[in-house]
Amino acid sequence: MNYSIIRYILSCVLEFEALFMTLPCVVALIYGEKQGFPFAIVVAACLLLGEIGRRIKPKSKVFYAKEGFVTVSLSWILLALVGAIPFVMNGEIPNYLDAVFEVASGLTTTGASIASDMAVFSKCGMFWRVFTHWIGGMGVLVLILAILPLSGSYNMHIMRAESPGPSVGKLVPKVRSTAAILYGIYLVITCLEVVALLCTGLPFYDSLLLSFSTAGTGGFGLLNDSLASYSYASQAVITVFMILFGVNFSAYFFIIRRNFKDFFKNEEVRWYLIIIFISAILITWNIRGTFGSLGNDFHQAILQVATIITTTGFSSADFNIWPEFSKSILFLLMLIGACAGSTGGGFKVSRVIVMIKSVKNEITTAMHPRSVKKIHMDGKIVPDNVVRSIRIYLIIYVLIYLSSFLIVSLDGYDFTTNFTAVAACLNNIGPGLSLVGPTGNYAFFSGLSKVVLIFNMLAGRLELLPILMLFHVKTWKE
Amino acid sequence: MNYSIIRYILSCVLEFEALFMTLPCVVALIYGEKQGFPFAIVVAACLLLGEIGRRIKPKSKVFYAKEGFVTVSLSWILLALVGAIPFVMNGEIPNYLDAVFEVASGLTTTGASIASDMAVFSKCGMFWRVFTHWIGGMGVLVLILAILPLSGSYNMHIMRAESPGPSVGKLVPKVRSTAAILYGIYLVITCLEVVALLCTGLPFYDSLLLSFSTAGTGGFGLLNDSLASYSYASQAVITVFMILFGVNFSAYFFIIRRNFKDFFKNEEVRWYLIIIFISAILITWNIRGTFGSLGNDFHQAILQVATIITTTGFSSADFNIWPEFSKSILFLLMLIGACAGSTGGGFKVSRVIVMIKSVKNEITTAMHPRSVKKIHMDGKIVPDNVVRSIRIYLIIYVLIYLSSFLIVSLDGYDFTTNFTAVAACLNNIGPGLSLVGPTGNYAFFSGLSKVVLIFNMLAGRLELLPILMLFHVKTWKE
Repeated sequence: MNYSIIRYILSCVLEFEALFMTLPCVVALIYGEKQGFPFAIVVAACLLLGEIGRRIKPKSKVFYAKEGFVTVSLSWILLALVGAIPFVMNGEIPNYLDAVFEVASGLTTTGASIASDMAVFSKCGMFWRVFTHWIGGMGVLVLILAILPLSGSYNMHIMRAESPGPSVGKLVPKVRSTAAILYGIYLVITCLEVVALLCTGLPFYDSLLLSFSTAGTGGFGLLNDSLASYSYASQAVITVFMILFGVNFSAYFFIIRRNFKDFFKNEEVRWYLIIIFISAILITWNIRGTFGSLGNDFHQAILQVATIITTTGFSSADFNIWPEFSKSILFLLMLIGACAGSTGGGFKVSRVIVMIKSVKNEITTAMHPRSVKKIHMDGKIVPDNVVRSIRIYLIIYVLIYLSSFLIVSLDGYDFTTNFTAVAACLNNIGPGLSLVGPTGNYAFFSGLSKVVLIFNMLAGRLELLPILMLFHVKTWKE
Repeated sequence: MNYSIIRYILSCVLEFEALFMTLPCVVALIYGEKQGFPFAIVVAACLLLGEIGRRIKPKSKVFYAKEGFVTVSLSWILLALVGAIPFVMNGEIPNYLDAVFEVASGLTTTGASIASDMAVFSKCGMFWRVFTHWIGGMGVLVLILAILPLSGSYNMHIMRAESPGPSVGKLVPKVRSTAAILYGIYLVITCLEVVALLCTGLPFYDSLLLSFSTAGTGGFGLLNDSLASYSYASQAVITVFMILFGVNFSAYFFIIRRNFKDFFKNEEVRWYLIIIFISAILITWNIRGTFGSLGNDFHQAILQVATIITTTGFSSADFNIWPEFSKSILFLLMLIGACAGSTGGGFKVSRVIVMIKSVKNEITTAMHPRSVKKIHMDGKIVPDNVVRSIRIYLIIYVLIYLSSFLIVSLDGYDFTTNFTAVAACLNNIGPGLSLVGPTGNYAFFSGLSKVVLIFNMLAGRLELLPILMLFHVKTWKE
């Protein structure tokens, strides 16, 4: 393990966190809030520590997959630990573990909150809380790659460890340019949403923050009732942009390049849209009559479907009191998640597709043991190692899921709460069912459960393996 | 598809069902019950149809894996459909779908019941109900293989499709002898249990039926409160035998052969016992004080752990009101299940072991992409195709689980009921949590849900693939 290079990159991460945190300072200045001071202090501390950490250049440039995974995991943990400090200092979240939970939930774009009343947050505090979604959505290290001229082999290892999805496709030959293109697309769509929300009559502050929350598919709301008190027009805009941010970003790259052939060949996006459409229709049918007209029912259904499958986690209605069938559909959507290469979490549609194709293949193989069939996706053969990884991903997922569920159940809350709280955190959604439903929050859990759920959020965002690796003895050997 | 040979074997199966059903006729004669007549009528009808079906010899001897899977699936469906008829005729279960549910639950050794009151069953009816556990435990076709001199390549294909576990090891070179040895061991341990229960003071009828139920790891009880009103001694005997029937039968073969080296090398049995022991300790700690003394708490805990991990499904206490942590442990044990090659259901301990080893391997591979490591079990390398099958097994399992859950939730019962009802049927356990807990039953579900749950029971007992294959178009092509 090359510790010196990890130390060096972590120092960069600290400086980037300082950079991000100057924004809430600016917000505090604009609104004249004294809650901005803690942010300024942490900015200064981060810059100082970052500079010290970067003073000594790494001795060796050795950087393998292992270093990539560890660097990414530690960076995210560091970001959460440091990002939580201002909330404790300004008293908005007095308990440090709760503050870490909130910031980890923000960075991992989960959106699970321990706060029951949004009124406790100052403008700058709320800005930082929601801005973490935007930072976490595309990934911090990807941003560092896009900006800093880091040379060497580690670009790809970091990119692979931080990007969501079973395989990382470089859009252009250079990793750095790929990262820049992704961030560019991310920025442009976010700006489009801000403009669209302004058009529906929302103030700039609200439009900006809701766009951050949507873009990262995070789900932190500004009001206690999430989206419920916004106009139907604003809700509709957010619904559309949630769906857009759940699409594989490489699809947008194809559009930019006017490569419509590859765009339409994209099986994942096609299935993603089909699943959204069918689920919305089924739920509309199931809740018909609840919201006055069929149009309103559909509006609520598709908003809820979009918010769950993209793992955003906004809510405009308490789906906890919807019929069981609708809740079951939403639970399944929680597990499926958005497209790979989007800002959404969950299992990812492409993994589900490959798994279903695996089953088809297995049936054929069982019938004709000597036939060997490959799995195709977008008209190309999926490499064997990718297929193998996806199958093992499910195993790791189930193991983490069930062991977390077991520990959380020590608190003694009901089965549905425990089972969906873990699902909601591991898939970076936010709300679950029962006590952690749209009108609930996560404050009541014990410290141990909160630590487990934070672990789940990080594991979900970083796609299981990097975080798991921290617990493997061999990782720390030289 | 060679339809003529399938027709021929199904006719044999019908005749074997007639043979089994003569036993309740004998019971009816002994107790002078008129409820025995329907059994006699069905016996006669089965013999007649079986003879007709066997008149024409199969044209071709072609018998591949595909035919093996289809034969086994159809045999089990046929056994359930025919076995249900007497209950409808004698009015003990008036609704045919309910009767099919009950018999399918018996044959698949699930033990989920639609009956709330055991007093409706006559002695002969109860005998047939519980005897289906014993038939299903080791498998009907394995018995046919052991007795009938079927020659040709199909022995192995049938054996593979019906036996539980990721891979079928022939104990001796001949499939027929292997089947005979397995049935021999099964018979001997069942007799031992009958004797042990007689020693605790139970009458012969009760001892015999409880032994059938334990041997098949089924779980149908004779009384409304399952095991609760039996003496602690009887409960202890049943606990021990449940654990014994959950062990891989090849382990007993090693003991018979005095091959203690291979016996102690058996990783699956070792882990199976460790899991039972740790779970019992944890639950004892969690429910301490509930049953008066620590000894009683442990007695209840280990009985419940044994009944759930072996997927028997007896109960001596309403674990539905136990603390959430204990219930979560029991839920996880539901999923794990017993050893491969035992009469128990579930995911099987050996599959879990291979999956955990897969994860370890994956972490190493991620760190050192060029290293290739094999998975070892009992000191031998697990073949790649077995490892691949186990991984895909999990995918199929999850897909069947979640789609069944979705359909069952249409009935509108609570999340815990739906989620654990599917777990209890797919793993052949019997009771779940909430409405389908130890004091509940499955009568309230709609017809559609019952069909889905019957499908789950069959899929669980036959290890998913054979039943799934019935729905694949290619299966039915020539």
